[in-house]
Formats: sequence, C-alpha cells, structure tokens
Amino acid sequence: MITLHTWTTPNGRKIPIMLEELGIPYRIATVDIGKGEQFEPAFLALSPNNKIPAIVDDDADGRTVTVFESGAILTYLAEKTGQLLPASGAARYQVLEWLHWQIGGLGPMLGQVGFFELRAKEKSAIASKHFLDEAERLLGVMDRQLAQHTYLAGADYSIADIAAYPWLAATAEKMQQALGQQLAASHNIQRWMTLMAARPAVQRGMLLPKLS
Amino acid sequence: MITLHTWTTPNGRKIPIMLEELGIPYRIATVDIGKGEQFEPAFLALSPNNKIPAIVDDDADGRTVTVFESGAILTYLAEKTGQLLPASGAARYQVLEWLHWQIGGLGPMLGQVGFFELRAKEKSAIASKHFLDEAERLLGVMDRQLAQHTYLAGADYSIADIAAYPWLAATAEKMQQALGQQLAASHNIQRWMTLMAARPAVQRGMLLPKLS
Ligand SMILES: N[C@@H](CCC(=O)N[C@@H](CS)C(=O)NCC(=O)O)C(=O)O
Ligand SMILES: N[C@@H](CCC(=O)N[C@@H](CS)C(=O)NCC(=O)O)C(=O)O
Repeated sequence: MITLHTWTTPNGRKIPIMLEELGIPYRIATVDIGKGEQFEPAFLALSPNNKIPAIVDDDADGRTVTVFESGAILTYLAEKTGQLLPASGAARYQVLEWLHWQIGGLGPMLGQVGFFELRAKEKSAIASKHFLDEAERLLGVMDRQLAQHTYLAGADYSIADIAAYPWLAATAEKMQQALGQQLAASHNIQRWMTLMAARPAVQRGMLLPKLS
Repeated sequence: MITLHTWTTPNGRKIPIMLEELGIPYRIATVDIGKGEQFEPAFLALSPNNKIPAIVDDDADGRTVTVFESGAILTYLAEKTGQLLPASGAARYQVLEWLHWQIGGLGPMLGQVGFFELRAKEKSAIASKHFLDEAERLLGVMDRQLAQHTYLAGADYSIADIAAYPWLAATAEKMQQALGQQLAASHNIQRWMTLMAARPAVQRGMLLPKLS
C-alpha cells in the first residue's frame, strides 16, 4: 500500500491526481504545513527538505521505497505502473522536458507570485514586477505549446499535465488580481484547463486531502 | 553527434560536465544570453522556454532527438548510456529526488539570490531576506545530506551531483558576501566540493563553453 504525505496545496495535489488516474490503493497522511508539521522528525526522515509531498510504498517489488519531490514521485509512479510516461523514445523526453519545466519554472515562479502578492507582510514593487513578468512569460510559453499540442508534452496526456494543472487551478482561483487577465486571454490554456477539469481523476484528486 | 546549445552559467555547465564524464563526442553551439540570442527563432524551436541548455542528438537510435531543461537532458544522457542514474530500484529514485530538489529548489532560489543581491537595479530588503533565508535553509539541507552520504543521492556519484555542483561553485565564486559565511561553515558541502573539483571531467566541463 502507498501512503501519501501531503497537504491542500498545488504541489500536494499532484500526487492524489496521479494515484486516482492509476486507480491504485493508497491512504493519505496529512502534514499541516501551516502548523509546522513538515518539521517533525518522523516527516523529515521521509522528506529531508521539509516539504510535501512524499510517499512511502511498502510494496515496491517486495521492499519499501520512500520518495520526496513531486517530480520524482510522479516519475516513480509512472515507471511502477508503465503509465503516463513513455518508457523510451522522443516522447519520453518530451514529457520529462515539460515536467522539469513545471518543477523548475512554473511552480517556483507562481509560488513567488503567491508569496509577494498574497502572503508577504510588506509589498516590494521590484519583487512584484520581477515575478509577475516571469509568470506572464511562462504562461505565454505554455499557451504557445498548447496552441500546437492537445496536452503539454504533445498528443498524449502525461505526468507533465498532472504536474501543471494544480498550479493553473490555483492561479485561476487565488491570483485573479495578479494574473487573471492574462489567464483569461490564454485561450489554449483555457481549452486545456477545461479538458483537465473534465477528468474524474482530476476532480477527485483536487479535493484531496479531505479535511474533516 | 550531439550538439549542445549552452552558455557560461551554472545551468549551462551541467551538460558539458556530464558529456565529459561520459566521454561521448559533442560540439558546442554558444547562445549568448546577454545578447538575447535565446530569443532567436532557430533556438526557440529547440527550447521554447528561451533558456539554455538544450541538446540535439542526431544519433538517437537512428533518429534526431532534441531536449531542453537540464534535468531532462541529464536524464536523457544517463538513460542513453546507462550511466550515473541506476535503471531501477530505490537508488534510482534517490537520484531523481535530489535531481528534482536541485531543479525546483536549489537552482531557482540561488538564482533569485543572484538576482536580488547582484543584478537587480534597486534593492528590496524583503526580497533579499526571503531568498537568503531560503538559500540558507537549502544549504543546510544539503549539508545534512552530505554528512550522511558521500554523494548527494547516496554512496554513488550521479547526475544529482552534476546538477548541483555548478550552482555551489557559482555561490562560492560570486555570492561570497551573501552566503560565503554559511558556505564556509558547511563542512560536508566543503568536503563534497573538493571531491567534485578533483574530477577531471568536472574541471573540463566547468571551463566550457570556451569563448575565444
Ligand atoms: N519542488 C517541490 C516543492 C514542494 C513544495 O514547495 N511544497 C510546499 C507546499 S506546496 C511545502 O511543503 N512547504 C512547506 C515548507 O516549505 O516548509 C516539489 O515539487 O515537491
Ligand atoms: N530549469 C532550467 C533553467 C535554465 C536557465 O535558467 N537558464 C538560464 C541561464 S542559467 C537562461 O537561459 N536564461 C536566459 C533567459 O531566461 O532569457 C534548466 O535547468 O535547464
């Protein structure tokens, strides 16, 4: 059984979506990052960078494997099941390109927009402009890619789409003032978001973890 | 033959190091990002995110494959040659964890320290503090990992080390004022940097691309 340590944030929702797509059994262990639970020793033993998500798979060819970093977890689950990441060839590296683009670009930069626009106690005009410019550039790159391809890495749905979707959904939901206008004008991203939002596994994954 | 499109920056040096380690023939095409060459249509066709590095491999099982994003390129070259990334098992995902940690954490955050400390025309105290705190946290995570393991992902040298090294070297060289004290006190990182710097392939890769 897989135990998923996660929380209700964009990075935290990628793995529930993946597990719902794969239809493999799992349980969720919540890590309330607002309360600092990511710094508890038991969690740090799984995720030394004190960030969610992390997984423990106690049925990895008869052994237990733990994985942190959402990009590594998505790759692990894709390779475990042979799904959503081609095993070889050009199509495999197209998926890994856009996965790394999300992990190294879209995610951290939208994260900084969230910090400087919503969470920082003081405003910094220079930081706001720097990260909004970069976020707008990245949304432009994504929109142009989706003008040419149904999904982020090409014709087929993949872990690159799963990695990007919760960040786009969070942008639409919480960063309207900062990026709403550009997002509304990004017609190819809009088309893709509609396609993604129609997937039952995406719908279920986006509601997890459920807090009682 | 592999053509590597790159420049003299930390992300740009990862791939020369990898190619030198593998000993496979390649040629370098420089992309001067200071002059905006990353926005030329011929380069954007390879790297739609307008960033170096990118590769073109015209001998990928008889086909031509192009790859952008350094994490995807390192994975491609490791899988093409069967080196520096185990093919399966827990050790494979340890490498991918620390590779993604570099791509999504260490790289972008040290990049922002570089921007706000060195390149930004105006200073922002709040942004400086935010990114220095995060960079110090990440260096702490790395130092603790290297206290327990010879290399970043465990006992064996891997693409995770290659991804991290040019960033640590740039920190030591250019961010002395901001992070030098912490770096000097990070004894495990120091040990690892000495180990890395002693590798002939690392030495050669760090000097590329050579500008005439
Ligand atoms: N690159 C990491 C980023 C993970 C991340 O930023 N997680 C955030 C929540 S979205 C977190 O756990 N923050 C808690 C902390 O930094 O203390 C990944 O993709 O897994
Ligand atoms: N996540 C990317 C980052 C690449 C990157 O940031 N490249 C920088 C140089 S270190 C660049 O090309 N900048 C030019 C630009 O952004 O216009 C990777 O790992 O390949």
